[in-house]
Amino acid sequence: MSDAPPNRRMILNAFTMNCVSHIQQGMWTRKDSRQTEFNSLEPWLELARIAEEGCLDTIFLADVIGLYDNYQGGADTSFRQAMQVPVNDPMLLIPAMASTTRHLGFAFTSSVLQAHPFTFARQLSTLDHLTEGRVAWNVVTSYLPNAGNNLGFEGLPSHEERYSRAEEYLEVIYKLLEGSWADDAVVDDRERRVYVEPDRVREINHRGTYFDVAGPHLSSPSPQRTPVLFQAGMSERGRTFAAQHAECIFVVGSSRSGATLAQDLHERALLQGRSNKDIKLIGGVAPIVGGTESEAFNKQAEYEESLSVEAGLAHISGNLGVDLGDIDPDQPLESFQTERVQGFIKNLLDSAPSDTRTMGDLIKSNLAGAWLTGSVEQVADELERRFRSGLDGFNLTYTVTPGTFVDFVDGVVPILQKKGLVQREYAPGTLRKKLFGQDRLPSNHPAAAVRF
Amino acid sequence: MSDAPPNRRMILNAFTMNCVSHIQQGMWTRKDSRQTEFNSLEPWLELARIAEEGCLDTIFLADVIGLYDNYQGGADTSFRQAMQVPVNDPMLLIPAMASTTRHLGFAFTSSVLQAHPFTFARQLSTLDHLTEGRVAWNVVTSYLPNAGNNLGFEGLPSHEERYSRAEEYLEVIYKLLEGSWADDAVVDDRERRVYVEPDRVREINHRGTYFDVAGPHLSSPSPQRTPVLFQAGMSERGRTFAAQHAECIFVVGSSRSGATLAQDLHERALLQGRSNKDIKLIGGVAPIVGGTESEAFNKQAEYEESLSVEAGLAHISGNLGVDLGDIDPDQPLESFQTERVQGFIKNLLDSAPSDTRTMGDLIKSNLAGAWLTGSVEQVADELERRFRSGLDGFNLTYTVTPGTFVDFVDGVVPILQKKGLVQREYAPGTLRKKLFGQDRLPSNHPAAAVRF
Repeated sequence: MSDAPPNRRMILNAFTMNCVSHIQQGMWTRKDSRQTEFNSLEPWLELARIAEEGCLDTIFLADVIGLYDNYQGGADTSFRQAMQVPVNDPMLLIPAMASTTRHLGFAFTSSVLQAHPFTFARQLSTLDHLTEGRVAWNVVTSYLPNAGNNLGFEGLPSHEERYSRAEEYLEVIYKLLEGSWADDAVVDDRERRVYVEPDRVREINHRGTYFDVAGPHLSSPSPQRTPVLFQAGMSERGRTFAAQHAECIFVVGSSRSGATLAQDLHERALLQGRSNKDIKLIGGVAPIVGGTESEAFNKQAEYEESLSVEAGLAHISGNLGVDLGDIDPDQPLESFQTERVQGFIKNLLDSAPSDTRTMGDLIKSNLAGAWLTGSVEQVADELERRFRSGLDGFNLTYTVTPGTFVDFVDGVVPILQKKGLVQREYAPGTLRKKLFGQDRLPSNHPAAAVRF
Repeated sequence: MSDAPPNRRMILNAFTMNCVSHIQQGMWTRKDSRQTEFNSLEPWLELARIAEEGCLDTIFLADVIGLYDNYQGGADTSFRQAMQVPVNDPMLLIPAMASTTRHLGFAFTSSVLQAHPFTFARQLSTLDHLTEGRVAWNVVTSYLPNAGNNLGFEGLPSHEERYSRAEEYLEVIYKLLEGSWADDAVVDDRERRVYVEPDRVREINHRGTYFDVAGPHLSSPSPQRTPVLFQAGMSERGRTFAAQHAECIFVVGSSRSGATLAQDLHERALLQGRSNKDIKLIGGVAPIVGGTESEAFNKQAEYEESLSVEAGLAHISGNLGVDLGDIDPDQPLESFQTERVQGFIKNLLDSAPSDTRTMGDLIKSNLAGAWLTGSVEQVADELERRFRSGLDGFNLTYTVTPGTFVDFVDGVVPILQKKGLVQREYAPGTLRKKLFGQDRLPSNHPAAAVRF
């Protein structure tokens, strides 16, 4: 952010999902991508090793707990295009990837609708112990109605209610992870035959609107206690929530500039008694690099052939909660100018590249909107520019996996390292220590209020 | 069981728990046990390799989701003795242990109170995919009131209600794992650009007493679909439940003989349309072996020094739901003969070894009741005897870990292999294939009724 220290470094996360097709829909059909092997451990172990070789900060695992089922009135396109379905649990990849790495962090997504906070808190502690403090939790509130129907909510609870629930969910998690065991509760004293001093552990006795939880927490304090908190909500309420709780805020999907968002979140954080240095702003980017610019653009042209406009529309329909199924990909753009256009389509049209002729072209350019194509130097320069204008780092979206990450780690990372922007080796300690200089949440974070 | 084929083999599981002290309370204080390292990945990876080297069938992970907090009116003894607290999530050990093994199975415990079945079903599928079908789920209904209070139930639901909930929980799990995706739903057809045929996936639209779940399931069919089902309830309702659903039934804690239990469960299974070959009966044993008998008994005497009577009483108190806190370990046994004695104490007294003088001795002998001590040949002979009299296999309880497992794998397994009772190498395929000869649940299992 604006007054960040000059020696701040660029955060880099490999952004992926435990499914066939995450963001760049249609690429799974390519022979040079391992996306359809997601059910197996081996490609995940490979990816973890690649990421650690490149000194990336984390592998960031997205998730949904329902279908995108509103495009053309159903989920058929999602199924055909493996558009975030099938999708497996992300958390379960982490212990295996941790066993083959030493420093790499792991951020994973879990919705406040999907797991009881008592059970989930123990999973967070378990992961933090097993990884020696390398875990981050991406707190989400779900946006797919099917998720609500899967979890007994009779459709998706309202936006307001989801955030109220998220507030209480975090409160319970903080009480368990931060407020139930003293730092010195585990004494492991063989002479006296005392492992835990009972008076250094307490119940939480939480009674709330959504949850009643007695405690105590069942796990002993883990290296970070609360894992690093990621968040991505960009609504009004979402930004307030993020400014209050999140340490890394993922700003993909916003049309605002990094600087504008940084300013907005900074102001909100100040209102919560937090500081801009407590919050890192993470943008999204899909790098396509080549030895030369033309090599990179040739690659991009080849990738464009594989994109699925239909799956892209299904994806966007689910995100917006609006069925874009009546859009004809072959319809010339001019015809939309005179029609009533929805806000989303209007935004697309306003930002359309000049050579865009049909709605299909437009959707493709949007699907690939995060593509940053160029020589390794060009891509490094552009990331530096974005970094200097307000972003603290990037979630790297794959076009093919692990190819996109291999290209980036081999080609771009060394240049960013030479520029002094990306770490050449990992700092010791937990993920939070690596990102923020300390193992635990700072004292101005709401979690600190419930500490033992 | 009685008419089992002569070529049946002995099932062996390494029985442990993601905590400091599982069953043999007090042993964590010893230098030759790695129990206090449970927060780290490394001892689990080591244990997995030892188990696979010994051709064991699974590592079986017990669990509780609450405290033993009724001994002397509280949990102080449990904390001091690390008696199943702290306790971490067991499921998260599996992906790491799977990454360092190829054939070993992993059974883990999860209560029907702790996770929403939609979320849990996806975790089961994810584990089954990642391990290539090496997972078993030990279905439990919880018995600790604190578990209920942690999970919003206002104390533990009644025994009947917990089993009713378990029935519906399994119904939802079966519908998701067996009934939502056809075997041929995933076509992965790059030419036609179709990954899943939409008409081969369906919602489950479950509406029940405890759960409303729309579906479809989010994971594609995994190698076993439903993991191998373990169960351990020995109550009347528990045995009926086990006979209906379970494939491996753990009969520890019962005073009945293997043959009697086998007969009982066999009859119950027949009533459910299942056959005795569909159910394996697993006993518990804590082998202490030496090159000679005296070496083994010297070891046992040494171990006895480390046992904690107090922690044993706390453990038993939680299991029984009765505070045994007023028992004086130094009280001579004779004094109990004339007092009103609780059923449990009476049972203990009736089975007391002749050299037992105090209540403390008695509790120790009960704590260590599963100890089977002798030369490697003696232990192998006794396991053979129990196997021939009705048990299909054993959960091996550790006294020290991994020492107990190392001793067993190095000393006893080769003898059992020579006897033709234990496999010399793993059969190929899934855990169910290895145990029952087929990947999927048989057609007479209730899960088959909801298949696609």
